[in-house]
Amino acid sequence: MTDSTATVRVELAERSYDILIGAGLLDRVTEFVDARGGARHVAVVTDTNVDGLYGDAVADRFVDAGVEAHVLVVDAGETSKSPDVAADLWQTMVDEGCDRQTVVVAVGGGVVGDIAGFIAATFARGLTFFQFPTTLLAQVDSSVGGKTGVNLEGAKNMVGAFWQPRGVLVDTDVLSTLPDREFRAGLAEVVKYGVILDADFFGWLEASADAIVARDAGALRRVIQRSCQLKAQIVQLDETEQTGARAKLNYGHTFGHALEAATGYEQLLHGEAVSIGMVCASRMAELMGRITADETNRQLSLLRRFGLPVKLPRGIDLGELSSLMWRDKKVHDGEIRFVLPSRLGEVDLVPSPGDEQLMQSLRSAQA
Amino acid sequence: MTDSTATVRVELAERSYDILIGAGLLDRVTEFVDARGGARHVAVVTDTNVDGLYGDAVADRFVDAGVEAHVLVVDAGETSKSPDVAADLWQTMVDEGCDRQTVVVAVGGGVVGDIAGFIAATFARGLTFFQFPTTLLAQVDSSVGGKTGVNLEGAKNMVGAFWQPRGVLVDTDVLSTLPDREFRAGLAEVVKYGVILDADFFGWLEASADAIVARDAGALRRVIQRSCQLKAQIVQLDETEQTGARAKLNYGHTFGHALEAATGYEQLLHGEAVSIGMVCASRMAELMGRITADETNRQLSLLRRFGLPVKLPRGIDLGELSSLMWRDKKVHDGEIRFVLPSRLGEVDLVPSPGDEQLMQSLRSAQA
Repeated sequence: MTDSTATVRVELAERSYDILIGAGLLDRVTEFVDARGGARHVAVVTDTNVDGLYGDAVADRFVDAGVEAHVLVVDAGETSKSPDVAADLWQTMVDEGCDRQTVVVAVGGGVVGDIAGFIAATFARGLTFFQFPTTLLAQVDSSVGGKTGVNLEGAKNMVGAFWQPRGVLVDTDVLSTLPDREFRAGLAEVVKYGVILDADFFGWLEASADAIVARDAGALRRVIQRSCQLKAQIVQLDETEQTGARAKLNYGHTFGHALEAATGYEQLLHGEAVSIGMVCASRMAELMGRITADETNRQLSLLRRFGLPVKLPRGIDLGELSSLMWRDKKVHDGEIRFVLPSRLGEVDLVPSPGDEQLMQSLRSAQA
Repeated sequence: MTDSTATVRVELAERSYDILIGAGLLDRVTEFVDARGGARHVAVVTDTNVDGLYGDAVADRFVDAGVEAHVLVVDAGETSKSPDVAADLWQTMVDEGCDRQTVVVAVGGGVVGDIAGFIAATFARGLTFFQFPTTLLAQVDSSVGGKTGVNLEGAKNMVGAFWQPRGVLVDTDVLSTLPDREFRAGLAEVVKYGVILDADFFGWLEASADAIVARDAGALRRVIQRSCQLKAQIVQLDETEQTGARAKLNYGHTFGHALEAATGYEQLLHGEAVSIGMVCASRMAELMGRITADETNRQLSLLRRFGLPVKLPRGIDLGELSSLMWRDKKVHDGEIRFVLPSRLGEVDLVPSPGDEQLMQSLRSAQA
């Protein structure tokens, strides 16, 4: 445990904000909000898993500071990212007297951040919003960048808004209660940042894998800080996904999303699907002569050390995976564009090499 | 009928757009959209009243131009501004293959514009949006300024987004099919612009009332053009309702909203409630010594010539009206702020003079 904190600044003109990372920051949540405009009325959005651990505790900090705070609890899990749950939250907020001065604070993982951010973006046409992410995945990925939203039937994240938080507070201590499988799944996105943007960071992850898996506080702070810096770099170039820069963040995700869909969003965690997806994408890059087998194998080996799956689930239908990829919303003018490495630390957007090489990439990751 | 058109530019940095006003512009809808980025896939949102008149016709223009167009029809009336209807539209759009390249075109009055704009703001985190308003109220007010949204129980427009259209096309010919009562209700907002911002325009309305009521094309174009210019002036100062400038547009609306609520949103059209509300607000300004009786009487007389009500409905409970006003979401720090004239063409935000003068203002408008 250490008392030092790191700050990552996300520069987005008048929507710029800080991500503060360190141990024990839960205790400083009201101070953090006060330094950023303050709040007189707070709606804490959390889920049934996190409420008892941190949701209520965050609300209590505000109440202790004389701020009226309500706690809105959604069911844990992806099903809460729905228009129905959004409608329930909106109505509850009206009934509890929320107005345009209310500040929304998300306390939870990616699902909580996405639904709370969407509520913040739309209630009274936009409320001030803070993120207090409690999973590694949310700390390194979903709480940075302003994407919020809910799912429709057959279309994940199809409704939402770009809505930047006014600040993100990452307390590394909360990871102590995160189940091991969830923790490891978050590391998949961390590996991704190394592959797409920073070979040195990738090398540091290889060197520090044991400390990271042991959840050493200093190692975790560096993992989160560098991941947030790298994501912020991309988001700053392409806040609302117009230029293609942001698409680089989808390394492993075209394969990963298809895998999640093919397995009904239950068998694999998002990070696990991305882990397997990165292996497939890297193999595809090899087949196209973009990288060497060694560069795939380093990823594979690091993912394995992080306890992440690198093989497709047994019995999965490769033809179904392929057709799911063609239906992905990121298919552009009838062309799947893959994010593929040209070396560790650099990726490009590449048109699909064709179905034969796509199938071959999938086969290379078969169990 | 005239062939000339007027353009009002709304200057909002990279969100700037044109409002094109004139007769017969329906025929130029695809040309208008093409000049502003074009569309390959269009979702026309309209209602059961407007679909047969203009909704299908607009979609047909796109289809004739080789653009895939879907028509989404909501029930006419305020009940369509609901989270449920939004959820239905979102899912229908997914099912019909809409994606982030889809362009949303609203064809209808204020309800259609508000729900279509909210859909455009949120589907795939934001779609290009055009407005083709078919009521006078929408042409002079709701289609300008980027406010979109739906109602919650007990809270009108409580969910939404600021989402500017890429262009607004106002065909004055469509007013020929607008029922007389709807047409007159739209004129209430027109009178409002004169009172809050432009005494000369108010004078021109007095001089041109007969031509306006006869729906003379040239008079209508000037009514719409000047109203849009005045609204744009305000919106440019305060796009997202931060500075208070935009609050001036609420002249007559604090009283009006209470009247609509007290009569169950059925007895009075919005413009009718605003008409009565302006009389109440102007009487309050008189009681406070801000203006003379003559300045109220000129408004009253113009509203009457436009066939608008200037008296409270018989039997209405003044105490209920007063308490509804205290519950209005615009109540700020426990203080109702009224928009009150200091002369024709100028208004200020003024704290409530207290319940006695509030009741007296209401009594002055009793039938």
